[in-house]
Amino acid sequence: MKIELELVKNMHFVGISPDEHKTHFDALPESGGENIAPRPMEIMLQALAACTSMDVVAIVRKKRKTVEAFKAIIDGERRDNHPKVFTKVHIKYILKSPDAELKDLERAVELSQTTYCPAIAMFKAAGCEVSSEFELIR
Amino acid sequence: MKIELELVKNMHFVGISPDEHKTHFDALPESGGENIAPRPMEIMLQALAACTSMDVVAIVRKKRKTVEAFKAIIDGERRDNHPKVFTKVHIKYILKSPDAELKDLERAVELSQTTYCPAIAMFKAAGCEVSSEFELIR
Repeated sequence: MKIELELVKNMHFVGISPDEHKTHFDALPESGGENIAPRPMEIMLQALAACTSMDVVAIVRKKRKTVEAFKAIIDGERRDNHPKVFTKVHIKYILKSPDAELKDLERAVELSQTTYCPAIAMFKAAGCEVSSEFELIR
Repeated sequence: MKIELELVKNMHFVGISPDEHKTHFDALPESGGENIAPRPMEIMLQALAACTSMDVVAIVRKKRKTVEAFKAIIDGERRDNHPKVFTKVHIKYILKSPDAELKDLERAVELSQTTYCPAIAMFKAAGCEVSSEFELIR
């Protein structure tokens, strides 16, 4: 996988994916940026959430259950000192479905977190504690 | 740090940062997506690149050297089997500067990779090999 990243101005960077999609990163003013895009570690946490959420939605759909809406709320804690790695991540998975059961959601998350999701696997291998919470909305 | 991630449609997700900036993720058609945004693991690699690149640019500027342009090219290798974690990452740091020396760039990368960059620290702690290459353009 080949990625390019270019400085736009000050601390504003743009990442270019193999399919030429662009993703923007920026720092806060106190770090020389203009806050016109998220911080890299915020996006890293979003990538983790997107990785596991894609698994979960795909697994629920494979069970022929309807995904009417899906949301994840992620809380990340970091070390106080450099390097400020993530030490704890809590993910709340919220599924709106007329026919899925809470156990379908729980099982999908379990499969993602133990088998499929490389982002979760890397966070865990790096010593980050990952915990989960589930909500089913009818 | 609190992040939200919402399903937009099919496999298209949008991440929302604490400052309400949005970042888009999508899967390929063979995985139920429409490829209107990058894959989560592509963005994770970009976040790693942005994290270390912000360090490098900041350190070079602190030495009162001019950053005329900056680019990083990142090659990531992943495991063939699930979970498909990154096993090797190679980063080429390219700095255009009229007054910086190659050793300024090398020293900035060294500081980022050994002290400051949490993304690099997490990838390394997760067993991913990280190698670097440097280019200075006048």
